[in-house]
Amino acid sequence: MDPDAVAKAFVEHYYSTFDMDRSGLANLYQDNSMLTFEGQKIQGSTNIVSKLVSLPFTQCKHTITTVDCQPSGPAAGMLVFVSGTLQLAGEQHGLKFSQMFHLMPTPQGSFYVFNDIFRLNYA
Amino acid sequence: MDPDAVAKAFVEHYYSTFDMDRSGLANLYQDNSMLTFEGQKIQGSTNIVSKLVSLPFTQCKHTITTVDCQPSGPAAGMLVFVSGTLQLAGEQHGLKFSQMFHLMPTPQGSFYVFNDIFRLNYA
Repeated sequence: MDPDAVAKAFVEHYYSTFDMDRSGLANLYQDNSMLTFEGQKIQGSTNIVSKLVSLPFTQCKHTITTVDCQPSGPAAGMLVFVSGTLQLAGEQHGLKFSQMFHLMPTPQGSFYVFNDIFRLNYA
Repeated sequence: MDPDAVAKAFVEHYYSTFDMDRSGLANLYQDNSMLTFEGQKIQGSTNIVSKLVSLPFTQCKHTITTVDCQPSGPAAGMLVFVSGTLQLAGEQHGLKFSQMFHLMPTPQGSFYVFNDIFRLNYA
């Protein structure tokens, strides 16, 4: 298993799901997952997806600029660091963002998001 | 121990050391530490500090915009996510950057940097 390929596949799946139907992200988080969104901490899959669904825009498109990945330690987790642009419907300019995910393995051989930190990078 | 306060103190210490004397960062990394710097992966304290010292500028100043922090799991690690601006001597404009650190506890009750991912955010 190539960690960079796993990271890239995760990132593509995450943002295409986000842009299509944010409620579809629920199964990528678990009860112990934590999201920090622009400084606000939110715990648990249900609360995280409620937050994402309630963001004040309907249509958006993430474009990925960079994906970096490192193993996070003995628990076989993986750190994924993303930079990119978020284009909101009706807005002229895209918003630069950075986001990091800490993926942890599931017993089924997949990964879930244990840590998620998102920040817009204001110019 | 307030994790946010620890994260903030670490970030202030890290960037003030970086801006004063990059070689002083050596004791914040260990042999199993990994840095991804603009996509280049570097392993181990010695190699990481060699890379940082060899960056093509002599004077710089980091200004921190945001610091976010989350516990990374059962190993008592801590994820620290930073955004800010890097001003190089002689350059008119600062460079926006994002960086994440995965801090792991030492037996002495301190932390070292296990994972470090750095990216400039080009406008």
